[in-house]
Amino acid sequence: MSFSPLINQLIESLQCLPGVGPKSAQRMALHLLERDRDSCRELSNTLLSAANLVGRCEDCRTLTENAVCDICQHPRRDRTTICVVETPADVIAVEQAGGYRGLYFVLLGHLSPIDGIGPEDIGIEQLVSRASEEEVDEVILATNPTVEGEATAYFITEQLRHSRVAVSRIAHGVPLGGELEYVDGGTLAHAFSGRTQLDM
Amino acid sequence: MSFSPLINQLIESLQCLPGVGPKSAQRMALHLLERDRDSCRELSNTLLSAANLVGRCEDCRTLTENAVCDICQHPRRDRTTICVVETPADVIAVEQAGGYRGLYFVLLGHLSPIDGIGPEDIGIEQLVSRASEEEVDEVILATNPTVEGEATAYFITEQLRHSRVAVSRIAHGVPLGGELEYVDGGTLAHAFSGRTQLDM
Repeated sequence: MSFSPLINQLIESLQCLPGVGPKSAQRMALHLLERDRDSCRELSNTLLSAANLVGRCEDCRTLTENAVCDICQHPRRDRTTICVVETPADVIAVEQAGGYRGLYFVLLGHLSPIDGIGPEDIGIEQLVSRASEEEVDEVILATNPTVEGEATAYFITEQLRHSRVAVSRIAHGVPLGGELEYVDGGTLAHAFSGRTQLDM
Repeated sequence: MSFSPLINQLIESLQCLPGVGPKSAQRMALHLLERDRDSCRELSNTLLSAANLVGRCEDCRTLTENAVCDICQHPRRDRTTICVVETPADVIAVEQAGGYRGLYFVLLGHLSPIDGIGPEDIGIEQLVSRASEEEVDEVILATNPTVEGEATAYFITEQLRHSRVAVSRIAHGVPLGGELEYVDGGTLAHAFSGRTQLDM
């Protein structure tokens, strides 16, 4: 015995959300139906508009419902630098850290031959063509320090080897506030090999 | 700097789901937009249908899109017993435990004067009128063992005091597989006061 077909279907549908299993989906469905029909309708509308209207920024490929995103449009961004990240969430993280005033390029993924994701799926060609524009001086690779992220960074470096832009990779090492004792070996090895000479 | 307005609105809307805060809502929104537009549209449709079509069973007040729910319609349920529970999820829990073959009455809440929830909001009148039907012998109170659940059970008992149906409360005590050492004092006290004589 279970809920009525429509409620079961709602519980099933809610499980498309990441981190939501049968139990939380049931809790969500009953919460919405028992107490919050208005939010339920509003969420339905927003989901539909977003699914239909959100596309990609022509310049940086981030998710946006506009042709060009706010950052790419902004008159005071430094157009000589492009930071390459994997997802729109990474853009927000870098923005929140402050300090970076250049533009972005959002891959929306990483190279992953096993999942059939090749260079054309993450817009490498578009990146190379943007990097060859006259005003661009530097491409900063800020893909994740995972196997796929590193492979993607390496691939992009290869593609840009013969262009005149500088290509850099963000530093990997001991995070601020971290204690050496608890940092993993790979990170420590990176921290040592990436050490910088101090002025004396 | 943040996401585009529509994506922000989606992140905001997703937070109407219980247990979803800004970070998980962001993760859900980006997951749907980056990888799963179809599920996004399907979820939108299901939410809307459910919000518009799901109502209450005429007999037991549980959530259903039909006039009368499956259990109330079922020809082989025992119509002499009514089990009173707080939510549709409780019905499923009792059904999954197996053994109970009677009908249900779903309050969809509990008495809570502080939130302005009185007897009329949880359908006590309808319950009393159902309990007075000729075929009903017993009303089993299975509200939660919380302050509000106990108060609701007590209130219903008072309402049915002068009717001819038997009113019972489910047992509260040490759960199966539980160890006395780790059971809280209130539950232990209940277990002692609710002890049953063994046949020798």
